[in-house]
Amino acid sequence: MFDPAPILSGDRRLLARLLTQIENTTPLADEALAALYPHTGRAHLIGVTGAPGTGKSSLVNELTKAYRRAGRTVAIIAVDPTSPFTGGALLGDRIRMRDLAGDAGVFIRSMASRGALGGLARATADIAKALDAAGFDKVIVETVGAGQSEVDIARMAHTTIVVEAPGLGDDVQGIKAGILEIADVLVVNKADQPGVEAALRALRVSLELASPPTARAWRDLPSQLHHHLAQARPLPQAEAHWTPPLLQTVAVEGQGVPAVLEAVEQHRAYLHESGALRQRERERLAYELEARVRDALFASWLVRVGHRQLDHILDKLQKRELDPHTAARQLIG
Amino acid sequence: MFDPAPILSGDRRLLARLLTQIENTTPLADEALAALYPHTGRAHLIGVTGAPGTGKSSLVNELTKAYRRAGRTVAIIAVDPTSPFTGGALLGDRIRMRDLAGDAGVFIRSMASRGALGGLARATADIAKALDAAGFDKVIVETVGAGQSEVDIARMAHTTIVVEAPGLGDDVQGIKAGILEIADVLVVNKADQPGVEAALRALRVSLELASPPTARAWRDLPSQLHHHLAQARPLPQAEAHWTPPLLQTVAVEGQGVPAVLEAVEQHRAYLHESGALRQRERERLAYELEARVRDALFASWLVRVGHRQLDHILDKLQKRELDPHTAARQLIG
Repeated sequence: MFDPAPILSGDRRLLARLLTQIENTTPLADEALAALYPHTGRAHLIGVTGAPGTGKSSLVNELTKAYRRAGRTVAIIAVDPTSPFTGGALLGDRIRMRDLAGDAGVFIRSMASRGALGGLARATADIAKALDAAGFDKVIVETVGAGQSEVDIARMAHTTIVVEAPGLGDDVQGIKAGILEIADVLVVNKADQPGVEAALRALRVSLELASPPTARAWRDLPSQLHHHLAQARPLPQAEAHWTPPLLQTVAVEGQGVPAVLEAVEQHRAYLHESGALRQRERERLAYELEARVRDALFASWLVRVGHRQLDHILDKLQKRELDPHTAARQLIG
Repeated sequence: MFDPAPILSGDRRLLARLLTQIENTTPLADEALAALYPHTGRAHLIGVTGAPGTGKSSLVNELTKAYRRAGRTVAIIAVDPTSPFTGGALLGDRIRMRDLAGDAGVFIRSMASRGALGGLARATADIAKALDAAGFDKVIVETVGAGQSEVDIARMAHTTIVVEAPGLGDDVQGIKAGILEIADVLVVNKADQPGVEAALRALRVSLELASPPTARAWRDLPSQLHHHLAQARPLPQAEAHWTPPLLQTVAVEGQGVPAVLEAVEQHRAYLHESGALRQRERERLAYELEARVRDALFASWLVRVGHRQLDHILDKLQKRELDPHTAARQLIG
């Protein structure tokens, strides 16, 4: 039986070990998450996302320091999906974040993007849950803004900061509407560099051209369960009235960071007061429940169906005597 | 009833329409894929992956021209997951690829990474299948080397080219083993730029330090079904004897491209002769079957369980009276 008490009372060593269990989706992790679950729901989950080179790690660093000065505890989850290919920015981030080390009110966790069998998004959500239960006021999830799973992670945050920087080519190609759909706060970092005016202009134009706020109300988490329920009984669109502010920072110098913190806190207050927080959480729960139900259904199916039948089906698929769509229907039916 | 004949006989307009159906996972797409499936299995699926800035699009461009000169037809699937955030490189790619346009033996398809409900990897695999049935000799899937789903896409190719470039910081941070595990051919592009020696050295060291070839035999597609079968009856490790060659190119000038083509063709011959092709295909089929079975199981479950029960469970989850793990077990049990 997993005893949640040490985690709840702040044992960092056990917490770190538990996070590894969660990343490896062990049976203990499931048990621990179940035991910790009643103690979750207090933390403010902040997503910070942006392309490499935008300086989002510096922004996270400075935001964290600002929160610490305000007496808040902060956990940072650094998700770097580029690491399988480029080695990622983890080392650099760790070096930059060393001024945060030694502060018991800060906890930094780097996620390996490989190996999380249940998917990176789920592992990140579960780790955020454990950090929430462990009592951190702010849980910041930092993702490189690339890849579907990273977009999914960004969508799970209560408040999402999208970081841009001048000269990343956005002015040439135009900014996709996607970025605006997930942004609660838009930050142009490195605002002391050339091209900042062009970047701001491009973002402003895109904001004006973008879907009206009502269309941004739901974040389209890929949850069939949620859509299934929403079709039967549409939920009120409580989030219709938040307009993402467009801010400028020079994060490495701390410039503009207080305004970002203020916007993030205003968004949080808005979420509470409008009822949007409850809606977002419900959608997130539907998403998680769906993932778990899918896994459980498949696991029990795999036990029922025999090796011989599966091998036989794969043989027929390989010989093109049967197609995967029909095979799946036959196996289920 | 879907008639596959026009697609099989090369109707490009119908093909393009079908690919859109596949991207949107419509019922027609399932029907079409089932009808086309007996005509698949002939194309050579080549994955080209690398970080932004490595010049992999230029390499794809030049490879395509080289294949055309050799009388092969080529379809290119450009998957750009960075597009939701940065606008992606699609426009740039299209401009660079305009010298391929007008050639009926080349077909270029850009994938939107957003919106593919069944997941980007699956949509890409299905599109590759349609292009295979349409008779293209080579189907090249170009992905930005970032994000779990893109790694999954790379893993589905018969032959994967991993593209690096000098000065991307790899020498500083070390090259992750992950890259070597999926690479059948390693290319250092922009080999006329400073730092090429350092990049080659770093790659060589990493290759030597990497897991022995036997450990690279399986690509770890996240398929429980495959692992389930493999546990019961381990498959022979046919792929043990391929050592990824390390090549240099200056793709924009076509320099080194013939050697890449030769290595890719050698890898293809190796796959055929060693029996590895059969194994990879079987693993890919297991992966696809699993995805389809998971969807079918969940869809039929969703019909069985009532809205009221789901809403009730979500209420309890939101009140922290129940945790998602236990809820899923109760709902299935």
